[in-house]
Amino acid sequence: MPPIAAPVNADRTPRQASVDALRRLVDANMLKVNRAILEHMQSPVALIPQLAGHIVASGGKRLRPMLTLATAGLCGYTGERHIGLAACVEFIHTATLLHDDVVDESDLRRGQDTANAVWGNQASVLVGDFLFSRAFQLMVGDGSLKVLKILSDASAIIAEGEVHQLITTNDIDTTEAAYLEVIRCKTAQLFAAAAQIGPVVAERPEAEEMALEGFGRDLGVAFQLVDDVLDYAAEQAALGKTVGDDFREGKVTLPVILAYQAGDDPERAFWKRTIGDLDQRDDDLAEAQRLMAKHGTLEASLNRARDYADAAQAALRSFPANPYRAALEELVDFCVERAY
Amino acid sequence: MPPIAAPVNADRTPRQASVDALRRLVDANMLKVNRAILEHMQSPVALIPQLAGHIVASGGKRLRPMLTLATAGLCGYTGERHIGLAACVEFIHTATLLHDDVVDESDLRRGQDTANAVWGNQASVLVGDFLFSRAFQLMVGDGSLKVLKILSDASAIIAEGEVHQLITTNDIDTTEAAYLEVIRCKTAQLFAAAAQIGPVVAERPEAEEMALEGFGRDLGVAFQLVDDVLDYAAEQAALGKTVGDDFREGKVTLPVILAYQAGDDPERAFWKRTIGDLDQRDDDLAEAQRLMAKHGTLEASLNRARDYADAAQAALRSFPANPYRAALEELVDFCVERAY
Repeated sequence: MPPIAAPVNADRTPRQASVDALRRLVDANMLKVNRAILEHMQSPVALIPQLAGHIVASGGKRLRPMLTLATAGLCGYTGERHIGLAACVEFIHTATLLHDDVVDESDLRRGQDTANAVWGNQASVLVGDFLFSRAFQLMVGDGSLKVLKILSDASAIIAEGEVHQLITTNDIDTTEAAYLEVIRCKTAQLFAAAAQIGPVVAERPEAEEMALEGFGRDLGVAFQLVDDVLDYAAEQAALGKTVGDDFREGKVTLPVILAYQAGDDPERAFWKRTIGDLDQRDDDLAEAQRLMAKHGTLEASLNRARDYADAAQAALRSFPANPYRAALEELVDFCVERAY
Repeated sequence: MPPIAAPVNADRTPRQASVDALRRLVDANMLKVNRAILEHMQSPVALIPQLAGHIVASGGKRLRPMLTLATAGLCGYTGERHIGLAACVEFIHTATLLHDDVVDESDLRRGQDTANAVWGNQASVLVGDFLFSRAFQLMVGDGSLKVLKILSDASAIIAEGEVHQLITTNDIDTTEAAYLEVIRCKTAQLFAAAAQIGPVVAERPEAEEMALEGFGRDLGVAFQLVDDVLDYAAEQAALGKTVGDDFREGKVTLPVILAYQAGDDPERAFWKRTIGDLDQRDDDLAEAQRLMAKHGTLEASLNRARDYADAAQAALRSFPANPYRAALEELVDFCVERAY
């Protein structure tokens, strides 16, 4: 499917999908979401807003709260509930980032020092807990048991996915199916929940909820697949994170799985040593990239991402064509095209 | 107030309060709570029940879920909702323990290896997140927004208290007021929430809710004060944790605050070096204990605990005398007397 060139985007070539159209559509509401985020991360314990502010301000794209705003708009919602709930989604995402950085022992995220590198693991764990609790407080304030169910289910599934990922780390025999299950849980579940909240607050029929939940899930899988490709492909400046992080941590992502499966005995020995035993030398990342190029595993992983992106586009087609739908379609393209 | 000698406890001297009477009263329901805990910590990701099972089985007294069962009983509740909600309370407590052990870098809890010592910090953080999410899923299943509010508020306040404690660690100028605020948040808030859930499910008037919430809070403060005394006083075998943990971590608890305030210049220099700078030598714990004995700060801290215990007892007096009230009164005494 060709990317949608929104009129607002006419100065770009059609291949360059972006989140600009979506951002413009939800801009006024995103300001309110950002205000809600700032307001609700306050605490008499000053370290909490300091640390939370660091990660909240560190330049994330706010894709997940934008999804909530956009699917609410797509469903014709005109109220204000989606503002606070989009902030909840971002709080849950931020909490998982804080805990991820502790888990990954990362020093950089989006090109900046991680919170744990600045304030230590202890504060990151606890402020993550605070933001997570605060998200549930906000949901309780909103008063919808349905939303509480969606986001508490998502949170449990995200945690399961993260633990599952921890187990598959350094396990070079991880299957593609197990990998996809991990990213469906750890990444796509929150995209799905964020997209489902729109039709829920708009009180749309169950079928629309399910369609947009599925849209979010497929988009999330595509997004994570591309992220995992970028970890071997992107320039550090563009990506805002260190290329080769996944490799150095021994994460078994799809480009690795496919290269291992396609490799001959010496290549498999290479993957076992570098990923399985985490015994890495200076040139190993370059060698990993060479083997991925040899077997075309980055391109094959992107093709998987495109399949999920196509499914996400298909889910949108049951909704009437309007600026929200067009912007969401372009978002899907953006999530895949950012790999170029 | 003299300790209550429950009839079931007649073979003990009156000074030896215990949780036995309470345990016998709620025994049948605690079996159901334990079953609910085991059932709901299951996950297709096997590490989750393994790690959660380790900490759940590690011999805690289950004081918090017992509080929920007991206050429900005190309020004449005859349904089953308190079972699942008591399990939620224990899940939240367990999640905070898992994260605490990461934060404290503890190797022992209740005399056993901590989960992070066995499975690593990463798994402990993530399984804590899972249990926390699972607690909210269970509350959503119960369907009470009021309970969700009580426990999401408590969770946020606990996290605030933990961060506050992190800030006061090594800060020898921490005031008694700041210390009390920390333990009100990090410990007493969950006792308060657990005790409040009883009257909530029993649909009792707001005044009873508030009375039992206050009871739980005062009991929790007394409990933590005694815990902090025991960290300098108990035999390791009896306490099930390493004596001197707080000292080695530079935690500024009430026995330290009072000793610092009462100390002369050389003593203050000792506290600044050992707690403030965490520059500790072999005999320093013994010296700390000697200075606490000199100024009677363990006894003074216990006296504060007794004040809170008295307040907790007073809150119970507005309820009709019955076996639940007697067992709760004995529980209060036990929480203070375990220091002997």
